[in-house]
Amino acid sequence: HEVTEIDLAAATVTVRDLDARRETVEPYDTLLLATGAVPIRPRLPGAEADGIFGIQTLDDGTRLLSYMDEAKPRRAVVVGAGYIGVEMAEAMLERCGEVTVVERAPQPMTTLDPDMGAVVAKAVRQMGIELRTEEKVEAFEVQDGRVSGVVTESGHIPADLIVLGIGVRANAQLAAEAGVQVLSCGAIGVDRRMRTSAENVWAAGDCAAKYHRVSREFVAVPLGTHANKEGRIAGINIGGGYETFPGIVGTAVSKVCDLEVARTGLTEKECRATGFDYVTATVDSTTRAGYFPGASKIRIKLIVERRSGRLLGAQIVGREHAGKRIDALATALWNEMSVDEMHLMDLSYAPPFAPVWDPVLIAARKAWENVQRAT
Amino acid sequence: HEVTEIDLAAATVTVRDLDARRETVEPYDTLLLATGAVPIRPRLPGAEADGIFGIQTLDDGTRLLSYMDEAKPRRAVVVGAGYIGVEMAEAMLERCGEVTVVERAPQPMTTLDPDMGAVVAKAVRQMGIELRTEEKVEAFEVQDGRVSGVVTESGHIPADLIVLGIGVRANAQLAAEAGVQVLSCGAIGVDRRMRTSAENVWAAGDCAAKYHRVSREFVAVPLGTHANKEGRIAGINIGGGYETFPGIVGTAVSKVCDLEVARTGLTEKECRATGFDYVTATVDSTTRAGYFPGASKIRIKLIVERRSGRLLGAQIVGREHAGKRIDALATALWNEMSVDEMHLMDLSYAPPFAPVWDPVLIAARKAWENVQRAT
Repeated sequence: HEVTEIDLAAATVTVRDLDARRETVEPYDTLLLATGAVPIRPRLPGAEADGIFGIQTLDDGTRLLSYMDEAKPRRAVVVGAGYIGVEMAEAMLERCGEVTVVERAPQPMTTLDPDMGAVVAKAVRQMGIELRTEEKVEAFEVQDGRVSGVVTESGHIPADLIVLGIGVRANAQLAAEAGVQVLSCGAIGVDRRMRTSAENVWAAGDCAAKYHRVSREFVAVPLGTHANKEGRIAGINIGGGYETFPGIVGTAVSKVCDLEVARTGLTEKECRATGFDYVTATVDSTTRAGYFPGASKIRIKLIVERRSGRLLGAQIVGREHAGKRIDALATALWNEMSVDEMHLMDLSYAPPFAPVWDPVLIAARKAWENVQRAT
Repeated sequence: HEVTEIDLAAATVTVRDLDARRETVEPYDTLLLATGAVPIRPRLPGAEADGIFGIQTLDDGTRLLSYMDEAKPRRAVVVGAGYIGVEMAEAMLERCGEVTVVERAPQPMTTLDPDMGAVVAKAVRQMGIELRTEEKVEAFEVQDGRVSGVVTESGHIPADLIVLGIGVRANAQLAAEAGVQVLSCGAIGVDRRMRTSAENVWAAGDCAAKYHRVSREFVAVPLGTHANKEGRIAGINIGGGYETFPGIVGTAVSKVCDLEVARTGLTEKECRATGFDYVTATVDSTTRAGYFPGASKIRIKLIVERRSGRLLGAQIVGREHAGKRIDALATALWNEMSVDEMHLMDLSYAPPFAPVWDPVLIAARKAWENVQRAT
């Protein structure tokens, strides 16, 4: 069954029975839009060939696995080097011989600043993945209905499997057509309780816009943790209770082989767009005391308001035990802390867990020095 | 060289040359007391025998290792089941056959609440360490000048090595004798800039009292991370700069084999002593998504002010990736957050790092439910 139309004035939805090819009109008291996101598929020649997979649902994953069992691909190309693209490249590396990632931007993971993205690029290449940046896919080559390669601006890459990791967009079409307010970020506008602009119509999850507490803008961020919270909040409110969504601060974490990548708040580019005047600080440290077995590298970058020293954003690239350190930074950011106060916070120390100054504190200290120098 | 006396009126110190057995009186403009802490040694029969080791300095560790190489002890007894005691028991387990830990209290790690201490006790026993709680050491047995066993209230434990892990106390004797204010916690009173009550006399490190931001009391907490910060702050101020120590919130972390134990804020007992009316919440979760390889157990307990829902304390016992989660809780506590606000915070999620609701959020949610139920 699929909803094909919403009539706000009549408070009805048109439901199509996909098997019986029949439509019925159903009334609603309360309507929750949980239409999620849809993967972006490039409108390129050959894009409909066999062997080209988008990855969003569990079914997508199952289809991809069956294809791999059957076709035994040896050369995979992943289009897009965001979180999903790079994570898929890791998975392909285990199952195919050669993996190439093609990314239009100058760096993988454009949710990081270029300098931190460059660290990821280097690490991804060291894993044996061929990463081609600033390269645009123009077409897919097809033989006997099955993909056989990728044509880019600068050449040709043979491939018997293509995975698309070029992101998703909020699925707000039905809402937009019905006249429910859709914001410029492409997602459905919601208030704190997850109410849309239309009476008795609620939205939650990837289709709903999220309030970003640092930029003060509504953004589309398709992450399971936000979707899960919003679903719970909408449910409590629809059920007659009271709960509000406080918004997000842009936290995300990802793992590629043993590389951990995390961020929170705003990047430099986002700071500029928002109008923040900022300074940055980047430090290299270790996840445990330097002498302790298993100590691994961690690089932390902080972005801080120039005048106040207030934390605006943080990015981490490192090995095991690096990524989750973003949570202390996200909590500090949530509370609008300044790096002056942060650098002497009481974070946990013991040699298996941190150097005597945790990398988070070292980064805050350096950022505070940079603030003082800049003012 | 050793300072044997401070004369505040004359602004001099008496310095004894330990080799030459000579004393000189030296004037000072500025005096920094960094006398650290001294291990508590029990005044018990046999306590001076060979084979009994306190562990505080690097030299202590070296002496212990040499003794073990030479005497090849097979039965070790650790007195005291605090962080150091339990960590030493782990080290002994690798090198001796049998390890017994004797603790006077009903549980190991009395810096945790009894219910969380019980989890540690069970895990320690599963490691093959014999843990005897509510048992008081009364004497050490000695044969030919070397320790041969421990006599407790309830019996006799043969041992050829004893490690004392019964804690340290602030070394404030010199300060007290000179008339520098020493607080009821046993450590030297200092202000935000690490100045003592005496003019031009500063103190930093284990000998100096720390302001606890939750209890609003001065406490003696001998941890390297505090000492390191205080040394830096005293140095900046003595050098003519300006820096203040914001205090601590009682954060600590420890690792015993693969068990991770962490705490921040106040325990239930400390809450009662401070006068806080509170509720608690304890949750069991996993460090990664349940289906993700390497997901391990984590138990989190929160202590929350009954009326406001303000976080007062947190304790974690778990396996790998559990302990460092205390930092997000310490940061929330530092900012006097309520669990109502905390439970929807934007902490990082991806399957290798957390379930879709991080255990910290689940714990905050449960605590908030308990607050609502209790009011």
